Amino acid sequence: MSGAVVHPLPRPVVTREVHLVRRPHGFPEHDDFALVDRELTGLGDREVLVANHHFSVDPYMRGRMNDIPSYVAPYALGEVMDGRAIGTVLASTADGIAVGDLVRTNLGWRTHGIAPATGVERLDVPDGVSPSAYLGVLGVPGLTAWVGLLDVAGLRDGDTVFVSGAAGAVGSLVGQLARLRGASRVIGSAGSSAKVAWLTDELGFDVAFSYRDAPVRRSLRAAAPNGIDVYFDNVGHDHLEAALASANDFARFAVCGMIAGYNDTADQRSPGVRNLAEIVRKRLAIRGFIVTDSLDRNAAFLQEVTPWVAGGHIRSRETVVDGIDHAVDAFRGLLRGENTGKMLVALHDS
Amino acid sequence: MSGAVVHPLPRPVVTREVHLVRRPHGFPEHDDFALVDRELTGLGDREVLVANHHFSVDPYMRGRMNDIPSYVAPYALGEVMDGRAIGTVLASTADGIAVGDLVRTNLGWRTHGIAPATGVERLDVPDGVSPSAYLGVLGVPGLTAWVGLLDVAGLRDGDTVFVSGAAGAVGSLVGQLARLRGASRVIGSAGSSAKVAWLTDELGFDVAFSYRDAPVRRSLRAAAPNGIDVYFDNVGHDHLEAALASANDFARFAVCGMIAGYNDTADQRSPGVRNLAEIVRKRLAIRGFIVTDSLDRNAAFLQEVTPWVAGGHIRSRETVVDGIDHAVDAFRGLLRGENTGKMLVALHDS
Repeated sequence: MSGAVVHPLPRPVVTREVHLVRRPHGFPEHDDFALVDRELTGLGDREVLVANHHFSVDPYMRGRMNDIPSYVAPYALGEVMDGRAIGTVLASTADGIAVGDLVRTNLGWRTHGIAPATGVERLDVPDGVSPSAYLGVLGVPGLTAWVGLLDVAGLRDGDTVFVSGAAGAVGSLVGQLARLRGASRVIGSAGSSAKVAWLTDELGFDVAFSYRDAPVRRSLRAAAPNGIDVYFDNVGHDHLEAALASANDFARFAVCGMIAGYNDTADQRSPGVRNLAEIVRKRLAIRGFIVTDSLDRNAAFLQEVTPWVAGGHIRSRETVVDGIDHAVDAFRGLLRGENTGKMLVALHDS
Repeated sequence: MSGAVVHPLPRPVVTREVHLVRRPHGFPEHDDFALVDRELTGLGDREVLVANHHFSVDPYMRGRMNDIPSYVAPYALGEVMDGRAIGTVLASTADGIAVGDLVRTNLGWRTHGIAPATGVERLDVPDGVSPSAYLGVLGVPGLTAWVGLLDVAGLRDGDTVFVSGAAGAVGSLVGQLARLRGASRVIGSAGSSAKVAWLTDELGFDVAFSYRDAPVRRSLRAAAPNGIDVYFDNVGHDHLEAALASANDFARFAVCGMIAGYNDTADQRSPGVRNLAEIVRKRLAIRGFIVTDSLDRNAAFLQEVTPWVAGGHIRSRETVVDGIDHAVDAFRGLLRGENTGKMLVALHDS
């Protein structure tokens, strides 16, 4: 990522990085990763040295740990895992980016890093918004929710909307956006009673339930006696089966992810979905999407959602794990659903 | 179906009908049906007495034999099974419909019947077209193929198209339409080597394979080394899994039926589909459809396809079972894939 060093730093900076050293088989283990310290000594032209404050761990990263062709290249073994991060500029040879600027980069799981200017985005954070929001509700997860609900599922006034993984970074915004955009009923599933309480008591979901309490199909039928018109899928499997069973005619499904199967292996796979015939019977439209196809929608997304966040109409939460040494714990916790809202790693000492 | 008899027939007509007398559990058995003779003695106002030549047996009828809510009402026990039929008018009290007219009705599985004028469609059959085509290639199956391929899947020039159940009434037209409409490669699956030969030697499919010879996933990958852009699904299950695996990014699936699961019961169900995560990874658009939502497209369909049929550019075949007493055999054979092209029951003595 760094070019020829033509601008030595006043003194070297030591960065600690998380490298992928073995491709996980099923659920990721600590030994799949290694902590590596490296010394950064200087910058090339048009480069920026950043001290990360926070970086993001996201479900999609599990897919990148496999060596299969996908919409983003797999992580290379022995390399740092990139991903969205925010931090402060410590040194810069790039026009328009100055020491002290708050920036968003793709530097990922490390304390410090050097990025080309083209991979650095200066953040102007309005009053009432925390910088880390640009990794969550105003970041890629927020754009994912907005694009999926509005562009992919085509939310309409009066729709009943069901979102799985509703207490996650994406799902919690889907529900709130649906409410603000005219849905008549918003239903969410999550993995604990505390999350369920957060959804209904603070985020304005009409109904929420824990998928651990009862079969999802039964819970959803009780929550949506008149059926659902939109399903935003973060989970797949039993949640998708339930949504198919409760779908109204001509319902639209935006499929964002299927975290339930992310750790499947060739010899141990989640059960298949059995009621796909509902697709015909109910004339369903099911569309998968990936937010990176819709980055041109980011300006419109921020224009609509930033005031809602700043004004408190949209709420968000972060689950913050402290320290680069616990990044793998954060990621494993994410896959187990231990987060409420956006899962972040904070680097207070950098 | 018949109103007050105010117009006695010159002499009574005996009709033989197939009634559903028990809801099938799994694969339909002969004892689920009964042959019933009834005497028709007269017509009400604006009614038509028809002697059927042919009636249609269709996969969707299996669903109507179950007592569950669906897009068409279930068949009632002890009643005749309605469905598309063509025949000759024997008596009429309706303006514009005369004795001797060739008509298409919804009178279904019976030799004779009385229909209200609103349920009777006069057929003007052009040269080069057989009347029974209006139950197949120019009938509802044809419209299904046309709507699904063009409106639902949105066929584009250069697409590689895969259709399952390709030797059936719908599938055989899908492949030929795709070819005439600019697809670069047309692939079909069927259930015998004779059907496969028909698809490639007579209908112009680029590749066809029998799903009995090898796993569908492997056969499709060999047939479409560069992936598929459109999948027209008549089968579901292993065919759907194969199409998901071979789909290109942004492929479109038109889901017309999933015959593989039509005879599933609560205690014996087909295996589920396991690779639905491809929907996200490849940003697939999967839409179910039912042709009765698109009857307003019939005129445009006939305008385009009738000349192709009359001119021999589109070929069709019929598998004809003789006699009302064998209607149940015809239907069971259809569900076992014994037909090539449209499965019909012919009533030569009526």
